[in-house]
Order: sequence, then C-alpha cells, then structure tokens
Amino acid sequence: MTHEFVIPLFLGSRSPEEAKIALFGTCWDGTSSFKAGSRFAGYAVREASYGMEEFSFYQQESLLEIPFTDYGDLFLPPGQKERALSDIASAVNEIKSKGQFPIAFGGEHLLAYPLIMSAWETHKNLAVIHVDAHADIRPDLWDDPLTHATFLGRIGDQIGFENIKQFGIRSGSKEEWKIAKHFDTIRPFTIDALKSHIDSLGNRPIYLTLDMDVLDPSLYPGTGTPEPGGIFWDVLIEGLKLLRGKYLVGMDCLELSPHYDSTGVSAQAMAKTLREMIMIANTSAFQP
Amino acid sequence: MTHEFVIPLFLGSRSPEEAKIALFGTCWDGTSSFKAGSRFAGYAVREASYGMEEFSFYQQESLLEIPFTDYGDLFLPPGQKERALSDIASAVNEIKSKGQFPIAFGGEHLLAYPLIMSAWETHKNLAVIHVDAHADIRPDLWDDPLTHATFLGRIGDQIGFENIKQFGIRSGSKEEWKIAKHFDTIRPFTIDALKSHIDSLGNRPIYLTLDMDVLDPSLYPGTGTPEPGGIFWDVLIEGLKLLRGKYLVGMDCLELSPHYDSTGVSAQAMAKTLREMIMIANTSAFQP
Amino acid sequence: MTHEFVIPLFLGSRSPEEAKIALFGTCWDGTSSFKAGSRFAGYAVREASYGMEEFSFYQQESLLEIPFTDYGDLFLPPGQKERALSDIASAVNEIKSKGQFPIAFGGEHLLAYPLIMSAWETHKNLAVIHVDAHADIRPDLWDDPLTHATFLGRIGDQIGFENIKQFGIRSGSKEEWKIAKHFDTIRPFTIDALKSHIDSLGNRPIYLTLDMDVLDPSLYPGTGTPEPGGIFWDVLIEGLKLLRGKYLVGMDCLELSPHYDSTGVSAQAMAKTLREMIMIANTSAFQP
Amino acid sequence: MTHEFVIPLFLGSRSPEEAKIALFGTCWDGTSSFKAGSRFAGYAVREASYGMEEFSFYQQESLLEIPFTDYGDLFLPPGQKERALSDIASAVNEIKSKGQFPIAFGGEHLLAYPLIMSAWETHKNLAVIHVDAHADIRPDLWDDPLTHATFLGRIGDQIGFENIKQFGIRSGSKEEWKIAKHFDTIRPFTIDALKSHIDSLGNRPIYLTLDMDVLDPSLYPGTGTPEPGGIFWDVLIEGLKLLRGKYLVGMDCLELSPHYDSTGVSAQAMAKTLREMIMIANTSAFQP
Amino acid sequence: MTHEFVIPLFLGSRSPEEAKIALFGTCWDGTSSFKAGSRFAGYAVREASYGMEEFSFYQQESLLEIPFTDYGDLFLPPGQKERALSDIASAVNEIKSKGQFPIAFGGEHLLAYPLIMSAWETHKNLAVIHVDAHADIRPDLWDDPLTHATFLGRIGDQIGFENIKQFGIRSGSKEEWKIAKHFDTIRPFTIDALKSHIDSLGNRPIYLTLDMDVLDPSLYPGTGTPEPGGIFWDVLIEGLKLLRGKYLVGMDCLELSPHYDSTGVSAQAMAKTLREMIMIANTSAFQP
Amino acid sequence: MTHEFVIPLFLGSRSPEEAKIALFGTCWDGTSSFKAGSRFAGYAVREASYGMEEFSFYQQESLLEIPFTDYGDLFLPPGQKERALSDIASAVNEIKSKGQFPIAFGGEHLLAYPLIMSAWETHKNLAVIHVDAHADIRPDLWDDPLTHATFLGRIGDQIGFENIKQFGIRSGSKEEWKIAKHFDTIRPFTIDALKSHIDSLGNRPIYLTLDMDVLDPSLYPGTGTPEPGGIFWDVLIEGLKLLRGKYLVGMDCLELSPHYDSTGVSAQAMAKTLREMIMIANTSAFQP
Repeated sequence: MTHEFVIPLFLGSRSPEEAKIALFGTCWDGTSSFKAGSRFAGYAVREASYGMEEFSFYQQESLLEIPFTDYGDLFLPPGQKERALSDIASAVNEIKSKGQFPIAFGGEHLLAYPLIMSAWETHKNLAVIHVDAHADIRPDLWDDPLTHATFLGRIGDQIGFENIKQFGIRSGSKEEWKIAKHFDTIRPFTIDALKSHIDSLGNRPIYLTLDMDVLDPSLYPGTGTPEPGGIFWDVLIEGLKLLRGKYLVGMDCLELSPHYDSTGVSAQAMAKTLREMIMIANTSAFQP
Repeated sequence: MTHEFVIPLFLGSRSPEEAKIALFGTCWDGTSSFKAGSRFAGYAVREASYGMEEFSFYQQESLLEIPFTDYGDLFLPPGQKERALSDIASAVNEIKSKGQFPIAFGGEHLLAYPLIMSAWETHKNLAVIHVDAHADIRPDLWDDPLTHATFLGRIGDQIGFENIKQFGIRSGSKEEWKIAKHFDTIRPFTIDALKSHIDSLGNRPIYLTLDMDVLDPSLYPGTGTPEPGGIFWDVLIEGLKLLRGKYLVGMDCLELSPHYDSTGVSAQAMAKTLREMIMIANTSAFQP
Repeated sequence: MTHEFVIPLFLGSRSPEEAKIALFGTCWDGTSSFKAGSRFAGYAVREASYGMEEFSFYQQESLLEIPFTDYGDLFLPPGQKERALSDIASAVNEIKSKGQFPIAFGGEHLLAYPLIMSAWETHKNLAVIHVDAHADIRPDLWDDPLTHATFLGRIGDQIGFENIKQFGIRSGSKEEWKIAKHFDTIRPFTIDALKSHIDSLGNRPIYLTLDMDVLDPSLYPGTGTPEPGGIFWDVLIEGLKLLRGKYLVGMDCLELSPHYDSTGVSAQAMAKTLREMIMIANTSAFQP
Repeated sequence: MTHEFVIPLFLGSRSPEEAKIALFGTCWDGTSSFKAGSRFAGYAVREASYGMEEFSFYQQESLLEIPFTDYGDLFLPPGQKERALSDIASAVNEIKSKGQFPIAFGGEHLLAYPLIMSAWETHKNLAVIHVDAHADIRPDLWDDPLTHATFLGRIGDQIGFENIKQFGIRSGSKEEWKIAKHFDTIRPFTIDALKSHIDSLGNRPIYLTLDMDVLDPSLYPGTGTPEPGGIFWDVLIEGLKLLRGKYLVGMDCLELSPHYDSTGVSAQAMAKTLREMIMIANTSAFQP
Repeated sequence: MTHEFVIPLFLGSRSPEEAKIALFGTCWDGTSSFKAGSRFAGYAVREASYGMEEFSFYQQESLLEIPFTDYGDLFLPPGQKERALSDIASAVNEIKSKGQFPIAFGGEHLLAYPLIMSAWETHKNLAVIHVDAHADIRPDLWDDPLTHATFLGRIGDQIGFENIKQFGIRSGSKEEWKIAKHFDTIRPFTIDALKSHIDSLGNRPIYLTLDMDVLDPSLYPGTGTPEPGGIFWDVLIEGLKLLRGKYLVGMDCLELSPHYDSTGVSAQAMAKTLREMIMIANTSAFQP
Repeated sequence: MTHEFVIPLFLGSRSPEEAKIALFGTCWDGTSSFKAGSRFAGYAVREASYGMEEFSFYQQESLLEIPFTDYGDLFLPPGQKERALSDIASAVNEIKSKGQFPIAFGGEHLLAYPLIMSAWETHKNLAVIHVDAHADIRPDLWDDPLTHATFLGRIGDQIGFENIKQFGIRSGSKEEWKIAKHFDTIRPFTIDALKSHIDSLGNRPIYLTLDMDVLDPSLYPGTGTPEPGGIFWDVLIEGLKLLRGKYLVGMDCLELSPHYDSTGVSAQAMAKTLREMIMIANTSAFQP
C-alpha cells in the first residue's frame, strides 16, 4: 500500500531484518499473587508509545536512529507456567542467535527467570542488577518455589546471591529480610548507592531486571502489589544512564497491569523507560 | 462485645452450627483465558449484599428466616490448579457431611468441576443444568483439557452429555457447536425452553451450575468474556423459581470479576441471585 | 459581553423573568443508606444536557420554544436534614408564588417530601404518582421515620395511601410488601398498568415523583441501590407522554449519583427525561 | 522467527496478498461535537477481538476460513479534516483497485463520507443503508456543512435522499425531522421494518454505514452522544444477516470511543459486529 | 471446618480473647462536606491488607507476632450523627475496659471526637497529635459546631488548644489560620518539626489522630477534599516510628473514600499504615 | 429569589460589573495530538472549586475579598480552529477594554496563541514566561504550523525567542531541543532557576502561560500527554508567588482533560492554581 497504515507495534520499530536490538512482549501473569493483569501490558505500552516523543531529552537521541524491532507479544497460554517459561527460554535464545540484543517487557516478574538463566548459560560470571520494590527471594510461596515472588531466590541458588545487586527493595517476608541482610544486597534508594553497585561490577556481564513497581505508586499505580515509598522518575532515569556503555547482555522491564492503571500514567512510564533502554542497549559493549 | 460490629460476611449469615445451607466463596481464576479477576468476587459480593433488602419480592421470603451460614472464601493459592480443585472437592464433601446444602460462588467456572463431580459420586443419576453464555465443552484449550472453557466437556465425558441441559449458550468453537448439536443440549433463550429442560428431569437429582455471564453484558459487565445477546433479569429469576421444591443436590453461581464491573451492578446482580438461590435451596426435596 | 459565554445551566434555560416553568437542583444525599453521591447530580445533568438535542423526537417540540428557567442548585448543607427539608419547602413555595411550575431534580428521594407536602397544602385532593424501584413506605429506617427509604410512608400517613399510585416497585421490606398489598398500589411494569393508574385519577391534581432508579440498572447504573429487573426507556417515555395535558401540579426527577455513573449514560438519561418533563409541564392544565 | 509472536491486528487477519476482504481502521474524531475519542478505537477493537471466538454461532462459520486482512489504522492527523477525508478516499480506492472488499471501522461517522462517495463514483445507482441513533442530515453544524452530524445530508444532496434508507434514528434537530419525514426514510425499530427497507432495494448496489450508537447505550456506552431507546443485539445481528448474498459494495462500522467504554463491552460489541460483517462481505454478489 | 476459609478481617487478626490491641472500623461519613464515601473504608482496607506483607521492613516485625484483633465495623447508621458519636464512645470504653488498646480506622474525621474525649476522661493531661491536611478547628461549618471540619476546635475548647500539636496542615479558613497562629500549633512539614512536637510532650499521655489526607494526593487520592502539597510516605513512616515506646493511649487512622481511590493505592497506604500502628501500639508504655 | 441558589461558576465569582479581574473558560481541544478532552475542563474546575477553601494559606488572603468575575466558557465550536482563535482574540480584547485583567483557563495550549498575541499588540516589549512539560516550539506538527505543540514557535517567530523564558520543559523533538539550546531558554526545575528568569525581566510586561502538565503526572494525570519527571506543588506555588506585584498583563492556566483525571486531583490542582492566580492578578502593577 502506498498509504501509511499504522500497525500498533512500538513507536519506531523497524523490520526484524534491520534490527540489532529486539523488543518483545512477555505478557503473562499466572502466578501473580494479588492483582494480576500484566497479560495485557503489550497493548497498553504500544498504544502509549504513540503519545511520547521519539527524541529523548535525557540521552539526546532519537528512537528513529536506533536499529530495533518489536516482534509483538510471544504467545503464552494463560495458566500454563511450565510452557510459558520454556517458550520464553527458547525464544530469547533464538533472538540472540540472530545477533540481536533482547529486551523483554510487560508481564509478571517470574518471566525474568528464563531470561536470566539464558544469559547465565552464556556468561557464567554474570551479575544481575535487580531493581524492584519486592525482594523476590523467598524459598517458596504457598509451597511453590518458582513464582513472581520467589524467582530471584532460584536465580540466587544457582548463580550465587553475591552476584545479585538489589535496589529499591522495601517489602518482603522476614526470611527474605534475613537473606538480603546476610548478602548485603539491599541498598538505600539513592543514585549514589546504585552507582556503587554498578561500579563494583567492573567489566562483568550485566543483566538488568527491572520491576517497574520500584517506582512510587503515586507515579506507577498500574501494578498488582503497589508499595508506597518508592523511587521517583529522576532516580530511575539517572540509574539507567549509568548503564550506558556497560557490558550489558540482556534487559527486561516488567510488571504493568494496565487495567489497574486508571490514569494511564504507568503505561506512559513503561513506554518511556523502554525508549531509554533501547538507546542504552545500543551502547552496550556486548554484541550477541 | 455488646456493640454491634459488622463482620463482612453475606447479609443474614448465621453461625455454622445453626445452618442447614452453606454458602462459601470459591474465588480463583487461574485458567481464565481473557480478562481474569474473579479471585476478588468474595469481597465484592459480600459488600454488595449490604445494599440489598433481605426480603425478596420474587419469593416473598426474608433471608433472615433461612438457616444459612457464609463460611468465607476457601483459601485457594493463585496459579495452583490441582491444589485448588482438590481443596474444593474435600471442602464440599466436608460441608455435605455436616448435613449442609452447598452453594459455592464467585470464581471461574472451572471450579464447578469438583463440585459437580462430588455430587455425581453420591448421585449417579445426576442431571446438570448448565446456564451460561459459553458452551464450555471443548476437548481442550491450548492443549489443556481442564480449564474454564472445557470443564463441562470433562463432566460430559464421565456422566454423559445427554445428562447435561444447557441454557443461554451463544458462543463457542466449531467443535463445541457440533457436540452441542449432536446432543441437542442447547435451547432458545425463553423461559418455556428452560421449563421443558427442567420438566424432562422429573425427580432426578439436579445440580445447577450458573455462569453469571449468561446475563446480557449490559446488565452484567463484570466478567472476563462478555457476550452480547444474553438473557435479562426476568428470565433468570423466573428460571430459578422453577427449581423451587425440586430434588436439588448442589448449586453454584460463578464468574464475577469485580474489577471489570465498573458500575457495580454485576456484584449487585450476583448478591441478589445468591439471595434467591439460598431461598430455593431451603425448599429442596434433598437434604444432605 | 457581545461574545457568547456558556454558563453551565440546563440547555435552553431562559432568565427567571421569562419563565413559566422553574427547574432547580435539590442535590443532597444525607440519608442515603448505601452508596450516596446524589449531591453532585446538578453538575452532571447540566453538563450532559449539552450533549443532547434540544428537539424531542418523542414530543416533536424544541426545548428552545418552552419558557423555562434553571435556577441552579438550592444550597443545602451536607448532613443537616431538617434545614434541607425546610429550605426546599420555602423555596418551592416562593417559586409557585411567582406563578412558575416547579420541577426539582437530582438528589435523594427524601427531598420529594417537602415538595409533595407543599403541593398537598394547596390541593387537598392530590394524588401522587410514584415511579420507583423501591417502595419507600417503611415505618422507619434504623429508627428514623423520615429518610429516603421511608418518606412516602410519611406522605401516605397524611394524604392516605389510597391516593398514592406506585409503578416499577420491585424491592422493599416485608412490612412494605404488606402495606402495598393492602392498598393494592403496586402494578405490573407495563404501560397499560400505568395508564390505568393515571386514568383512574380523572381530573384530580397530580404530583409526579420519579426516582430514576426505576430504570433497569443496565441503562441507569448511577444510583446508590441499583435493582435489576427495571423498566426500559420506551416505557418511561410512553409513561411520561400519558401525562400531557393532565392537571399536574408539580414534578420531580431524583436520584442521580454521577460518581457511580461510570459510563455517563445515567446523566444523559436524566437530562433527556427532564427535557421531556419540561415539555409536559408546559401542557399542564394547572398554572400556578 | 519460529516462535509464535502475536501482532495486535484483528483476530484471524491474513497477509494482504491472501485477502479478498480488507479491514482497516479509520480512527479520527475531529468534528465530534460532544465527547470525542474514537481516534483510539483501533487499539481497543483489536485487543477485544482476542477475547471472542473466531466461530460465529449466528452464521456458523469461522473467521479463520475467510480470506481477509487487517491493514492497521490509516494515519490521519488529528485536527486536519480535509487531509483525513482525502486520504481515506484515496486509500479506499487503492484497496478496491486490488480487488479487495473494503470494511472501514472505528472513528467518527463523518469518515463514511469519502467511503460512500467512492462507492457512488463506481455505482451510480447506489443505495445507502444508514443504521444510527442520529439522523446526520442537518444542513450544517455551527455553520460547517461537513461534520459527523451533517455528512449524510451532503450524501443526500448528491445521490438523492430517496436512495438513503435509515434505521434506528431517534435523535435529531427539528430540521432533520422534517427532511426525514418528507422522504419517509425513518422506520420503526423492528426487524420487519429493516427487512422491508432491504427488500425494496432489489439487486441494487448497497453500501452499509453503521454507527454503533444505534445500539442501546446500556449495551454500548462507549460513544460520544449516547441515546437511550436504541436497538438491542438480536436486532443488529438479524439485520446484518439479511444482507448475506446481497450486492454489497462497501461497509463501515464506526463510532467507538473506548475511553468512555468503562465496562469494555462496547469494544466487544464492535469486534463481534466486525466478525459478522467480514463473513457477510464474503458472501457479497459484488467482487471488486 | 478443617479447611482454611478466609474471613475478610484485617490480615493477621486473632480472636478477641487473645488480643491486647483492638482494631475496629468506624466507617461513617455523614458530615463530609464535599465528596463523602468513607463509610466504605472497612471493606477496602481489609481487602487491601491481603495484598501486603505481614512483615514490616520499617520496624522489622511481623504482624503475626502481635496480639491484635479486628472486631469488624461498628454499625453506625448513615445520617444519624448523635447516635454514631454516642455508639463510638461507648464501644471504645468497652474495648478499653477489656484491657485492649483501641485503634479506630476508616471514616470521616469527626469520628475522632468521641475517641479523643474518651481518652481525655481518663487522662486529663492528655496531648493530641493531629496529623492532617486541614486544620479542623473552625467554630462551625454552616452553623454546625460539630462536623468533620470543626471537631478539633471542640476538642480544643475543652482540653485547651495548647495541648494540640498539629502537623501537615495546609488548608483552612481565615479564622482557623488565626487560631492556629495564636497557639503556634502548625509546623513545617519536616520530620524534625514533628520530632520537636513529640519531644515537647515528654511522658504525657498521647492520642494520635491521623487524617490520611495529610499525604500528598498523588499518593493518596482516595479522600473527599484532596490537598496538593502534602507529605510523602517516608515522612509518615518516620513520624510514626518516633512514637515507639511513648505513652500512647489511643490512635485512629481516618478518611478513606475507596470509591474515589481509582488506583487502589490509597487503600494500600491505609492498610500499611495500620500495620505500622498496630506494631507501635504494642510498644506503648501505657496498657489499658 | 430570596433563597440561595448556586450557579456553578467559580467559587467566589462576583457579577461582571463588580470585577477588576476576569476569569473565563477557553475549553477547546481541536489540535490535541494524543488524548484530547480539555473541552470539558470548565465543568470540572468549577465543580472542584467548591471543594476548596476560599482562603489561601500560601498568600493569606481570601478569594471573597478579590473583585473577580467568572464569565463562563467562551463558546468555541469543536473542530473549527480559525474561528476558535479569532473568537478568543476578540473576547480577550473586549475584556481588557472593560479594564479587566484576563485569566483564561481550561483548554489546549494552542489557545494561548491569541491571548499572547493580544498582549503583544499592546505591549511590544512583552516577555512570556512559559511553564510546561513540552517545548511547543516546533516548526510544524504533521505540516500544520499552528497547533498545541507548535504555537510557541509561532509566538517566538514574531516576538523573538529571546523574549520567551521556559521552565519545566522535559520533552520535545530534536529540532525543539536545538532551538531551545540556541536561545538558552530552558532551565533546571528549581525555584532558583525560575527566580533568575523572572529577575532578568525587571519591570517588563509579563504574560504567564501555564500548561498544567508541567506538574508531575503523579499529581496531575488529567492531561493528554503526561510526562514523568515534572515539578511538584511546592515549586509551582513558590513560582507563582514570585510574580506578586510584577507588571503582569495576562495569564492563562491550560490543559485539563477531566475525563482522564480519574482521581479528580488534577481538577483540584487547577482550581487551587486559579485561586492563587486570581490573588496574584490582584497585585499586578498593570491595570488594563
């Protein structure tokens, strides 16, 4: 067609063939323990992306200059956890096999598990930066060891908790408090604390897993278990910018429940965060 | 306390010891395939019950005269299907062992599976009246044979489709259409059609499973997969009244997603339906 | 000013001096027993009036041709019942003393009490047409004899229940059921039943009190205690048209809680109902 | 990719090359006179399509068997009316030049103007079936002759009002009332009245323009100027089925304001209506 | 029952017999002057409590270790002010007579009046810490001296304004401004200012009355008269922690209108504040 | 009438004859590029004004002491840009010709164009203080040089960009970034930065144009293109107070989309901002 039809993919998405960076929705919420609904994140974030500028005042770049593609949402059947985790694992491996940097977004935080495991398979000295309101390191939730509230514990079991750097954590069980204290993984909510985390990693491969509920729920209400006392936009943006040029090997930006985002501001916040992440991925010292 | 404190159980609930009828919430939504959220039905329905009269103009009785108890919501961990089904089965068996008539309410329609199976274990000549917008008799949904969209097929596999009487059905897959056509289980949406269904059962034991989305979504928007073209309130009430004095052995009233019920009318509708059901249970020829 | 500034009064309102019909908001909700909020009806209805045509297909007249004024909302302080009732009584008397036909709208149904009493003072053979979902004739509500759920009982105590014609009633206490049965005031929800009510009144002075929750909550969710099973738009409109040319001495159109009217359709329905009422008032055989 | 990624186009959309029927969003709302927002219809309808069955109980066909494509939303800049109308005209011409049957959806009703004009250029004996709550035949709205409330008047000026068949109309200005009366274009809201309209057209080429606000706002609140008293789902579906096998040359399904569709039911209704329309287009005697 | 049924009381509530601390809902809103609705606080806060951790990162304790009970909501009939105030007074006296520390929550701020008066009857050297956006010390509101906007003036009349320490106040009438200035009760919104307030009280008995609208409405929109410029979460939590081990004799946490809390974050904030308050009550030097 | 009827104009509005300051709604949204709806600002702000105190703690004055009038909303037909701009220009000129200080509020930011142009016609050494999230200085938006996103560029073309002082800007195109950088118009979001802007203007005539989306969307979600990272209430209020006694010649306060203001807090914020602006206008060294 010679006319301009808009397919509702993320603003500025190119064809897969032209892309060095791959954005894809992982929108599933089967273990969410209170309010679910992140299965619908994909629609909301893509629609919101048309309400933002393609240019970033923070990084002074335009999304239109970055070679990225949006693949759409990976199909993940509601209620089928094993299948969802396995399909994400193989999809991200295929994306990386094409030489594309993976950025997953949308669904519950459990979905970071196969993404981080995939990164660790290739990079055994991997460090994980975990930005979140919740610790996510319980031994189990109602006897299930692998849920949105426990997945990082399972990562820690395998890669070692000393390789996980946490930021923004303000809620958890007594058990999680003890683990976090022992490994000293939790820091104050200042940009300096985050910077010292990142500096400590030197040139190690880094995976960034970002639960957007780290933001204060005044700004980001669209999440299942909002936690007052979170960080604000300036800390998030400054924190992301600290990662420019680092040896990043993967990123995710998860947990948007658009049906609880009555003001629509949460979807805007995730869309703009993804815009910044795509620009940062483009600077990574690592190229798959 | 000498002061009157209101515990938010269903309006008119007595202590379990005084009850011949047991209301209990089964609020879980783990296989819901589009919009979920029926896990929150219990709060919404109980709150709504305080906005209705205890007296019914339809049956000219008062809820305060019926010996029923509301047990609260059975704890069912999000995302754990096998455990949820098994806990419901054993809870309903325990309720019946106390000589109480069970009425479950709230969550997704899959939860009727253990309730009907429990009834069938005792009453091998059981008939099921299935009132719903959706056929729920697929062989599987995304390879899973036991979900909110397939559970009645699994019932039919065991008790025989000829023992299932459907009403209100207006959506399904091609496969479901064929099965329903073969067994002639689907009828027009008139009170006469429903009456002929019920009359055909004579004195057989009856289990009523009611998916509230049988109502037109103009009246009942609070559901995950709304289907225009549904029945209205008068048909629902007249239909229920046809069951007074029948040999009912169990009932459920399922599928309320209160977070999609923006007007609050759906919760009112479920609360009032339960008021009527409790009165009908009190007339059942069967006493557990 | 030579420019056209829009003051948010009801569409087509003239200056008080030009008016034979007086519209005024009585927006107070101090005894509402479940969800309140009709104090905000005035804003919502006036805004909605700008979304409708001034011409009525039902009566084939234009609002712009009817000499009516909208006085705004009578100031009624929240929580002060005696003062609210007394201020309404004296305001409506002043309106009538100017030769204007009064139409009150917006707030809870208790506010009809002083309006009807004022009509009865002048017209001792008054009949009241009561269109509502609820009977409103209890002896008391939580020991208070004068509330939104009891006011019509107090009217009946004074003017005689046989002079009250009810329509649309489908909810009430056992006591109300007995009173209504005794006086045979409740009728089926057909236009014929309403017509026989009206015909029975001959040329007697009539006051119409309309609780908009008589409408089915699918169409009119913006009310505190929605009752499924209500009348639809065609019956309301046909019913109103039956009053053209009758000896009407006052009307009200009450109970809009705009903050529970999530779709905005309830406010539209009240605005259009007022448009029709204003046209009907213009035909009344009575002129104050 | 070997994994299944879901691009949020309408459920069952094929590639343009495989299609005989072309669905496309025309989502613009620049002349909407009260509540606007139909510019966002595209996202909402496509998302809603994933909540419905691909099989229709009404026509007993599956969407997956119909060769149609969804092109996405035609880009139409907010506030630029002339450009929007001109871009739609040339896009629909290009679609037809590919031998594809055009079905436009989403935005305000003015957008039907270039679609109908394009049909009339090819088919000079064109008849228009206009299903709507509003007459849309004013000479002008605030001095503008071409708006969502006047466009059909402009069509009538050119093709003759006698070639326009209206159904569902219940609101308009006094002027519109007179025009409609003169041409006797308005009929009762029964399926028989609609059938006689259609039968009167014989084998003439037909364009169907459907403003979804013809539905009662209880079912379809997601529109800018809701009009109580509309048709219900069964009449809409039966009406559509009357068009199977007719000489249809184009269709549209317009006016969804998803941000006023607080229950989400309106978007479901439009998605299901489009499912039926696509099946009907597939039976048209006309093939472009 | 051997199965786990969840009664929707506050997370971690024990039976009254085991409790040293008594939580109870006082949910009534009869004098609220703009948007009301705090009558519904009880349902919302209890539901929200199931979405939070029982463990507090702020005090490093678990709610499960604190002997408290939730009595439910005291029944307070809408619109009956004298009865509501009197019932609260006698209920709190009964609670204290059982040796339980009272924490009331939910409704409008007027309800603190009988709670504080009850404390003052026992502790004549009582000091009140008043945390709020509004001064609440007017002589009257629309001629009524005892409303949600004046109650603290009535307290001051009796116990002396010099015994009231205010924090967070940013709105009031000119009269209130003058009173507050004269008694120097208002301080800057810093934790130091609050600390100096508390330090000045030494070992005196303290009653804490907390209107949650002291929080900025970005975080806490669920209130009738939101005031921008409020405190944020960190100041609230730090302020509460200053009260650990003090001679507290009662607390309340009031003003949640859940139907205006469209994001649900306000209910979360009140639930978490109550969790912290319960822990602080457990440390009080005073034991009733 | 001797009774107190409330006409829903801004709290404290006097008759035009008594006024030195003129408030008027300019509520039109025809070029809004994402979410529109500011056409409805007038209703929302006036209703919200009744929920605030007439006294300001910030300026220690009462609105009741300031001679201002609210004219209502200037009628501006949807979709007719040229007419809207021209009508605003002539209305503001008429207001000024009466010796009244103009304060426009409500609609999209394009509407500031005729207001500023009118000020510049009289005051050729005018300086504009532009407080906003967006730069609004593009050459064009989709080929249109005069839209809500470009109007300030057109102002700059005429009065010189060096006479525009911007504050709060955090979003724009690459082109806007370059222009802003060249003219050094953008400053950090501190009160000191704003003060240096204002100080630099000395006694020059100042027009203040305030797009309320300069506020962080956590506090002000009711806007079409929310931008995280905005200023908070204290900076806005302190900034406004810097203008007391300056040579102000006009002000506006624009961009409220109440239908996206789900919490109602944005309308409260605009109402309170207008209260402060009216007090500041009263101190202006300039009197028209």
